[in-house]
Amino acid sequence: MQPFSGNLTIACPDRKGIVASVTTFLAQHGANILEANQHSDLQDKAFFMRVQFELEGMDLDRAAIGPAFAPVAQQFEMDWQLNFSDKPKRMAILVSRLDHCLYDLLLRQRAGELVAEIPLIISNHDDLQSVAESFGIPYHFLPVGKTNRAEQEARIDQLVEENQVDLLVLARYMQVLTPFLVQKYPNRIINIHHSFLPAFVGGRPYHQAYERGVKMIGATSHYVTEDLDQGPIIAQDVTQVSHRDSVDDLIRKGRDLERLVLARAVRAHLEDRVLTFGRRTIVLE
Amino acid sequence: MQPFSGNLTIACPDRKGIVASVTTFLAQHGANILEANQHSDLQDKAFFMRVQFELEGMDLDRAAIGPAFAPVAQQFEMDWQLNFSDKPKRMAILVSRLDHCLYDLLLRQRAGELVAEIPLIISNHDDLQSVAESFGIPYHFLPVGKTNRAEQEARIDQLVEENQVDLLVLARYMQVLTPFLVQKYPNRIINIHHSFLPAFVGGRPYHQAYERGVKMIGATSHYVTEDLDQGPIIAQDVTQVSHRDSVDDLIRKGRDLERLVLARAVRAHLEDRVLTFGRRTIVLE
Amino acid sequence: MQPFSGNLTIACPDRKGIVASVTTFLAQHGANILEANQHSDLQDKAFFMRVQFELEGMDLDRAAIGPAFAPVAQQFEMDWQLNFSDKPKRMAILVSRLDHCLYDLLLRQRAGELVAEIPLIISNHDDLQSVAESFGIPYHFLPVGKTNRAEQEARIDQLVEENQVDLLVLARYMQVLTPFLVQKYPNRIINIHHSFLPAFVGGRPYHQAYERGVKMIGATSHYVTEDLDQGPIIAQDVTQVSHRDSVDDLIRKGRDLERLVLARAVRAHLEDRVLTFGRRTIVLE
Amino acid sequence: MQPFSGNLTIACPDRKGIVASVTTFLAQHGANILEANQHSDLQDKAFFMRVQFELEGMDLDRAAIGPAFAPVAQQFEMDWQLNFSDKPKRMAILVSRLDHCLYDLLLRQRAGELVAEIPLIISNHDDLQSVAESFGIPYHFLPVGKTNRAEQEARIDQLVEENQVDLLVLARYMQVLTPFLVQKYPNRIINIHHSFLPAFVGGRPYHQAYERGVKMIGATSHYVTEDLDQGPIIAQDVTQVSHRDSVDDLIRKGRDLERLVLARAVRAHLEDRVLTFGRRTIVLE
Repeated sequence: MQPFSGNLTIACPDRKGIVASVTTFLAQHGANILEANQHSDLQDKAFFMRVQFELEGMDLDRAAIGPAFAPVAQQFEMDWQLNFSDKPKRMAILVSRLDHCLYDLLLRQRAGELVAEIPLIISNHDDLQSVAESFGIPYHFLPVGKTNRAEQEARIDQLVEENQVDLLVLARYMQVLTPFLVQKYPNRIINIHHSFLPAFVGGRPYHQAYERGVKMIGATSHYVTEDLDQGPIIAQDVTQVSHRDSVDDLIRKGRDLERLVLARAVRAHLEDRVLTFGRRTIVLE
Repeated sequence: MQPFSGNLTIACPDRKGIVASVTTFLAQHGANILEANQHSDLQDKAFFMRVQFELEGMDLDRAAIGPAFAPVAQQFEMDWQLNFSDKPKRMAILVSRLDHCLYDLLLRQRAGELVAEIPLIISNHDDLQSVAESFGIPYHFLPVGKTNRAEQEARIDQLVEENQVDLLVLARYMQVLTPFLVQKYPNRIINIHHSFLPAFVGGRPYHQAYERGVKMIGATSHYVTEDLDQGPIIAQDVTQVSHRDSVDDLIRKGRDLERLVLARAVRAHLEDRVLTFGRRTIVLE
Repeated sequence: MQPFSGNLTIACPDRKGIVASVTTFLAQHGANILEANQHSDLQDKAFFMRVQFELEGMDLDRAAIGPAFAPVAQQFEMDWQLNFSDKPKRMAILVSRLDHCLYDLLLRQRAGELVAEIPLIISNHDDLQSVAESFGIPYHFLPVGKTNRAEQEARIDQLVEENQVDLLVLARYMQVLTPFLVQKYPNRIINIHHSFLPAFVGGRPYHQAYERGVKMIGATSHYVTEDLDQGPIIAQDVTQVSHRDSVDDLIRKGRDLERLVLARAVRAHLEDRVLTFGRRTIVLE
Repeated sequence: MQPFSGNLTIACPDRKGIVASVTTFLAQHGANILEANQHSDLQDKAFFMRVQFELEGMDLDRAAIGPAFAPVAQQFEMDWQLNFSDKPKRMAILVSRLDHCLYDLLLRQRAGELVAEIPLIISNHDDLQSVAESFGIPYHFLPVGKTNRAEQEARIDQLVEENQVDLLVLARYMQVLTPFLVQKYPNRIINIHHSFLPAFVGGRPYHQAYERGVKMIGATSHYVTEDLDQGPIIAQDVTQVSHRDSVDDLIRKGRDLERLVLARAVRAHLEDRVLTFGRRTIVLE
């Protein structure tokens, strides 16, 4: 059992003394560091850090930690976040008809691999209603047609707000989100693309892979940005294929990749391990 | 020790009775099959086969096998080839300044992993002359400038002919071949591209990979066609990278991939395991 | 959609003319070969083959194929089997408390990846009753204590017979089967062991792996024999771990391996691709 | 180009304030941290750290850094080491007859992947003398027979001392070292074992793997201890094999693994990334 902990993530310009200042702050207040990772981007002179520390034994209660840290943050011009392990993130899952990623996320959450609450599932189809029910999660069927896209996205946004959702996971959701939602939730929408990006952007990537005769196929999980399939990559993986594999075989093998890669990305996000820097991510693990 | 063997490769339209006809032909002449692989492309109704058979015990001498097989081949409209294990292919290696793929091929050939003769190494630089010498292989320094490209390629072609070369391996040869050579040696020129094609075609793929923030890098070995980096893929592999890897780290990790993937492709070709079909390869192993 | 097909698997001493005889038999009766794989074990002079052929167009109806083939089989002293694609195997799943392999098999069967009927699930615990129910499969709760092992195994055997089960899958079933069941169903019981066998046989392999400080963990699926964890290996895979991984992390990462490796082994068995030869398997794919 | 840097590695009991003390020490003396990694073993309450820092801009010259750090080290009961990037380690390579690991290490050193000096190569055979010569490195031929083992090891020890060797790499050296050398150079002798330890300890592991019918083979690099093949593991990797692979194929595929895994371990050691803790290693990268 992990002890009850705080989790501080930091991004700032790189200069001397950052680690010393952050860790001295924690030491002075009696915090025991459980895990600390940092990365200095030497090319772009940027610094990234994640510190997970035990709250027990600190001389500050949790509400006071942030204000006490603020002067340190200000000194180094930090973008920073402070999260607590007893307050899991709230995750909405968006799906269409394919169930493999949905089942995977639900089972991992139930097994404790993904520490999150899942207050709702949203879909443009009603196929997976019974899956949601068997896990006891409300299912919102919001069919999208030619004329109601904006309306349905407004409804999604409303559900996200009402349910205080921190993270939207597109688990093979077959709709392109409009700029409205994408801009409102930067670095808070995770998609799984069924190819090794940047190869085979766009639709039917397994068919493209088959046509090109590649010997491996991949999957890529990334934050959603306005440029389709161009957002910062969080996780990728591949598997071997051969001339014996038909498009159906690629789809079958791809399902395993999609599940694994999406779960890895969501887990990293839920643990506040993913920082973005331009088009790239820093995954501190 | 492998017994002395013949190796028959076949491509033809798929229909009933092909395997029976080929294997009956071999059985009737007393050949013992060592290895047989076939593939039916159900979508395009095409058939591919590789049969390796022992010559000892056959009632035909080697010169007579081809003519005796011709009627079977004709009946099924086969493209076919017959090779013998005691006549290794002759391979020219083309390099520029990087030595890792060259050393790798030479050491594998010496260790018996690649069964081939290497009568010459060709380069547009003189950097690797001493490597060639330490392995006792003639080195032809053919610098390529703005005005002598056609002339130097003619010289390459001449060397290839004089040395009865079967296969040209571009082991990080940093020149684009002209259509003249490419058309003259179809499916006989193998290149190693330092990315997971079709991602990052063209120059500086490791820099492109770094900029895009991918979590894996790859290498691709393919036959050279007139469309740069678009030829049929023979082998691919990837390795994990992270935000901690600089471009130099990607280049370093990539070298291991390039060596492994190029060697795998060359080995498959030397063993007559690679058949091409449009833009794809069938690798029968 | 795969056409309706027959599937012939053969093991026999290696000698000349086997492939010719088998394929000529099929050609003479008008069968179109969809896929054929063979393997000659040169060291032990053994031959293995799997031929999948279309039934449509044959001049034999299915009941007549076996008897017609018998003389060929006899000539070459073949162990052989003939199966038909419209008669899927019947698979019993045995589980204890862990649900990840069970869910995985059920979802793959429903998605059509595993072509099998699942007439029953058997468990020594009642924890997974509701999973079985949500998939509409009868669940038999057979608790095993110190005194009733033989009795409960007899009950399992009875259920297997009543349900005409072809294959028993131990999906993290935490009981060691007695020789009675193991001997009765040779090469028909598949287990998933949560380590890279032969490393870490026996109990608590993830704890053993942690203590030894390995940098990769694995999973192994094998046929069950009387020697615990010593049966012929069908599939294996591994994943990277590091000093940062606790035993719980190894268990978590191991779950993904177990699911993938067990599914791969079960799929190969269901498609009649696995032949055993002494302690080894030939997996013809 | 990496800047000129110091590299501090630390192991000590885990308690509050370690990171703060170390980084504050560096900050107070004007050091810019290039890379810092730490690991807390929560189970055994142990702490490990590696900090790489720029020397330029510090108010201490290099000889003064250690003494200035000593009080911090004492306060936390640290085992610690301080190395400087302009003083590469000196590495002796021990080989027998196989050349693939030797070539690999020499080429990587020449390419700058392995930052080390290689003052000598030692062998119990004279086969690889010419390889050593082509790289300009002294080769010491010390044949080992039944009666001169102790004598030859004393000679090895003498060479190691004379050449101020920091690291001994057994690059497929086919002799078991006596406790004398092993005890004298703890965590300074790296071996490559050609199996996925702890599977297949001892001799002829590829033959053992073949007999067992495994579907993957591996290689393991570890520090040498008195228990054969039981030392702390630094790096491991595996590759897929199948029934088609003969023992010779396993040996061939294994060579690639051995090269990659040994190089990875040596590189980590040379960069002071490997700390040992009981039977395990912490590899901070």
